Amino acid sequence: MATPTTTTAFYIRSNGDPAAVLESGAVALPANDLQPNQVLLKILAAPVNPSDLYGVLGVYPVPLTPATTADKTKDVRVPGYEAVAEVARVGSAVRDIQVGDWVVPFRNGFGTWRAHAAVDAENVFVVRKMGEPELALEDAAALYINLPTAYRLLKDFGTLEKGDWVVQTAANSLVGKYVIQLARAWGLRTINLIRDRKDFDATKKELMDLGATAVLRNETDELADFVKANVDAKRGVRLALDPVGGASLAPMVKVLGAHGAAVLYGLLSGDPTPAIPVGDVMFRQLKVCGFWVAQWDRDAEVAEKQAMNDELVALLRAGKIKSPAVEKVVVPIDGRAVGEEVVKRVASGLAGYRGNKDLLVFQH
Amino acid sequence: MATPTTTTAFYIRSNGDPAAVLESGAVALPANDLQPNQVLLKILAAPVNPSDLYGVLGVYPVPLTPATTADKTKDVRVPGYEAVAEVARVGSAVRDIQVGDWVVPFRNGFGTWRAHAAVDAENVFVVRKMGEPELALEDAAALYINLPTAYRLLKDFGTLEKGDWVVQTAANSLVGKYVIQLARAWGLRTINLIRDRKDFDATKKELMDLGATAVLRNETDELADFVKANVDAKRGVRLALDPVGGASLAPMVKVLGAHGAAVLYGLLSGDPTPAIPVGDVMFRQLKVCGFWVAQWDRDAEVAEKQAMNDELVALLRAGKIKSPAVEKVVVPIDGRAVGEEVVKRVASGLAGYRGNKDLLVFQH
Repeated sequence: MATPTTTTAFYIRSNGDPAAVLESGAVALPANDLQPNQVLLKILAAPVNPSDLYGVLGVYPVPLTPATTADKTKDVRVPGYEAVAEVARVGSAVRDIQVGDWVVPFRNGFGTWRAHAAVDAENVFVVRKMGEPELALEDAAALYINLPTAYRLLKDFGTLEKGDWVVQTAANSLVGKYVIQLARAWGLRTINLIRDRKDFDATKKELMDLGATAVLRNETDELADFVKANVDAKRGVRLALDPVGGASLAPMVKVLGAHGAAVLYGLLSGDPTPAIPVGDVMFRQLKVCGFWVAQWDRDAEVAEKQAMNDELVALLRAGKIKSPAVEKVVVPIDGRAVGEEVVKRVASGLAGYRGNKDLLVFQH
Repeated sequence: MATPTTTTAFYIRSNGDPAAVLESGAVALPANDLQPNQVLLKILAAPVNPSDLYGVLGVYPVPLTPATTADKTKDVRVPGYEAVAEVARVGSAVRDIQVGDWVVPFRNGFGTWRAHAAVDAENVFVVRKMGEPELALEDAAALYINLPTAYRLLKDFGTLEKGDWVVQTAANSLVGKYVIQLARAWGLRTINLIRDRKDFDATKKELMDLGATAVLRNETDELADFVKANVDAKRGVRLALDPVGGASLAPMVKVLGAHGAAVLYGLLSGDPTPAIPVGDVMFRQLKVCGFWVAQWDRDAEVAEKQAMNDELVALLRAGKIKSPAVEKVVVPIDGRAVGEEVVKRVASGLAGYRGNKDLLVFQH
């Protein structure tokens, strides 16, 4: 198969509102100059995460990947932090990775919203060798950011024991749904807070079907009442997970038991300075922690990443985790711009609640 | 020596403003019914800490100790959480403690504002055996709350390495001054924030003499400027200590390096809900933790307490820690009420800044 020297990509020339600055077109691909330690990837699928669009806006502290347009006149930058790819070629010095393997690029700001890319072999993890059972695209594409976030949130803060309670906001987010399923797989119980909404009952049913122990309305008394009636008062809720960052933090802190932890992992509310009830934090010796998967990725050992990957892939294969429904946005790979409507749709990912999340699927 | 059957105590009949509810008088002492496992203490000195007065107010979550007045008509409660005492008698089953030893009662809500008390031997630590070198009363009396608080604040959060920076508010508080000295003894550098005040220069000199690396004005740009000029940008400040609980938290969080920790250990500002900058907490994976020495005391192993005590006593004897100047309030022990002026003075400990801290010294 001839190796293409250009590929289709989404890119920007400067940071700004995605609807204004996101473009699409052909970018150069150094396929014929593949270094001995590199692999050439056919990117199969890449999620549209909020962090990707914050990266486009320029408010997310991971730079986008530089690229050159096919006509070599423009320096552009490619968004997208997460993907699953199939290996198309391997450099002469690469061991343990073969053509046809599925890999997940494990490198901050790799630029996943393009159909092909070359990358150092040490920056990818194999998630499916040839001949191993199938993995759904949306499952495999979540293995760098969304599934690791849920995994680390439950693993890295305090000591959760079987039967312990975890409370989270934005429970119907992608990470929230993974948290529910991992918690169930590990014998934990979850209290899931979502905004009151027209389709509250349907959303509640969806989360209960995934394994939620309870689904409650955010910013009401429902949380305090539920905890009073159901949670051992001495042990309390052990862990609170919050990607919202606003008024919802304090009520969750209030229901934590001694030495419990609240973890902030997002800024969805746009309120950058939630208030913490210092008396609760002090007298019960709580922790309010930050988690950011990109920083975790920089700090973690390879063996630790590999172990997590293996466990997550095993859980996916065993059907213990199902990826939430996604909208597949098909992207041609003929090295030309994709239609304006597709670009617009991708750029609109931050515009409030829009049902399922978009997954770019490159049509190899 | 005849054992007294009553002793002098401070007490309250109900919670409220210390100036209104604090009294003094004779309380019964079960000296002649000493249990085999008990020791009878002559309390030598007891600090007047803010927490003691919050206990009187009823807003501090450690109950005061019940007692009976000498005329047996009134149930009262004795405040005071910290003291040093001399052992006056030992029960028949007590080993390892002898008459004349100095001990620190290690039990929440023991009621130290009285001249004598009986206590289970397992609830005291020997801090000076007969014949060992002298300890100053104000040093020994700080070994249950104030010195352990400073010790744990520096030891228990994150991994401080030699040369690392610590920032603290209320640096001229008793705990703040111990933090400065322990940090110096352990090779750490401290940035000490105090309010702007008439005697700023004198206070600064006092803290510098104790070993402060820098003394700056709180709620100004001085902290940000100092850190920019003096602290390695990548490592940042590693630990922020805050007993104030208000607006001073956020600027300290901003100067923490990745994986740094802020520890809340008091509520002096009366502002119970400081705002935390969630972007900083998240992207640098910070921790905002609570510390409360009474809870630490409940959770810690005896060996851990003993090791800390031994180290602190050794540092005191070596002159590496000096207790800040205190005002000694002499209390007679004749089993009668102390003068109204003394009671008023003790009750006024929360009324703003009043120079040195009071230390009740029982006149045995």
